[in-house]
Amino acid sequence: MEKAIVSLSGGLDSATLLYWAVNRYEVTAITFDYGSKHNTKELAAAEKLAKLTRVPHMLIRLPFVNDLFKSSLLKSGGEIPEGHYEDASMRSTVVPFRNGIMLSIAAGVAESSDASTVLYAAHAGDHAIYPDCRPEFLKAMSDAAKSGTYNGVGIADPFVDLSKKDIVLLGRELGVPFDITYSCYKGGDLHCGKCGTCVERKEAFSAAGLTDPTSYSI
Amino acid sequence: MEKAIVSLSGGLDSATLLYWAVNRYEVTAITFDYGSKHNTKELAAAEKLAKLTRVPHMLIRLPFVNDLFKSSLLKSGGEIPEGHYEDASMRSTVVPFRNGIMLSIAAGVAESSDASTVLYAAHAGDHAIYPDCRPEFLKAMSDAAKSGTYNGVGIADPFVDLSKKDIVLLGRELGVPFDITYSCYKGGDLHCGKCGTCVERKEAFSAAGLTDPTSYSI
Repeated sequence: MEKAIVSLSGGLDSATLLYWAVNRYEVTAITFDYGSKHNTKELAAAEKLAKLTRVPHMLIRLPFVNDLFKSSLLKSGGEIPEGHYEDASMRSTVVPFRNGIMLSIAAGVAESSDASTVLYAAHAGDHAIYPDCRPEFLKAMSDAAKSGTYNGVGIADPFVDLSKKDIVLLGRELGVPFDITYSCYKGGDLHCGKCGTCVERKEAFSAAGLTDPTSYSI
Repeated sequence: MEKAIVSLSGGLDSATLLYWAVNRYEVTAITFDYGSKHNTKELAAAEKLAKLTRVPHMLIRLPFVNDLFKSSLLKSGGEIPEGHYEDASMRSTVVPFRNGIMLSIAAGVAESSDASTVLYAAHAGDHAIYPDCRPEFLKAMSDAAKSGTYNGVGIADPFVDLSKKDIVLLGRELGVPFDITYSCYKGGDLHCGKCGTCVERKEAFSAAGLTDPTSYSI
């Protein structure tokens, strides 16, 4: 079985990707602590998901991101805005080139461990505000990993054409324990229900016609 | 004046790039400690060079590289081979996707600090054994940074067509203090004179017809 590295944040999308990948690859999951407000909650979710799927789990800490980068998503940044993802205010939650950094590190880990592929859960809904979720970014990053490694490590985004609703439907089929996953940008004990990612999460369950197992604080 | 981030290892090439860049940009230098055997010596050289050129200097530590990656260049790896760069044995010194990781982080720092460009001292002699110095890698990485950031951060490699001899000649013209720069993969007090980078350094000064100010242990 080919080896793959799954970039696992602990959110709904990457949890579904993990469950999708374990049927196809010998998986190692990799999670990044880059100092976001919700990293502690995300990491705990990622750890549980890796245990449930019995895959090795690497945690990589990137403290310099919180120290040097500007974003309201970071502990060093301002308030997380409320509202829909498309709102201009959500732009403040972008962590500059975060996905480029995470995918590069994952590509290095892949080359070091003879994994052929890095799997990444970008999806169709991400593109609007995140430049490093755009298809042209993912294509270029994939070319960079392929040409910049001896083994020609691939970066694959199997969900890139799926909507969040599609991912929820796929996740249910695969038995993903959605109640364990964590997404809220505010990082509280309960999902806030108001930030962009909470709004999107609610809408996805509703559009899929499924009961949302998430506990929201409102 | 436009702002640029210079990736400064403390070696001869990036020192020359720094001196070239300060005439053209408002420069911040960025140096990575990724656990190589020669990082301590390199970092000290980088710090001196940043002071001499009076540019702000960021040091970014990436301890996970030494912990998780495989390379003889790392403290966790085996012996550094001796001989010429082209020798197959030198392949063991490649740190998987190192340049992809460093350039991605530099792109994130650039976007966070409104710098338009990341400058990087890949040169013509690098391509043979380092996949992440190949022109096709640099082109793809540059496309990734441009499409993956709001500001369209550029990655530029102004020395990509220069030989090491050309860089030495340019450095002399720019007044680069070559005696401060450090390259040796073994990381000793004196340059070993036998590893790939020492051999290349000697050859470059000799081809340029300049006195090599480096103290070698042989």
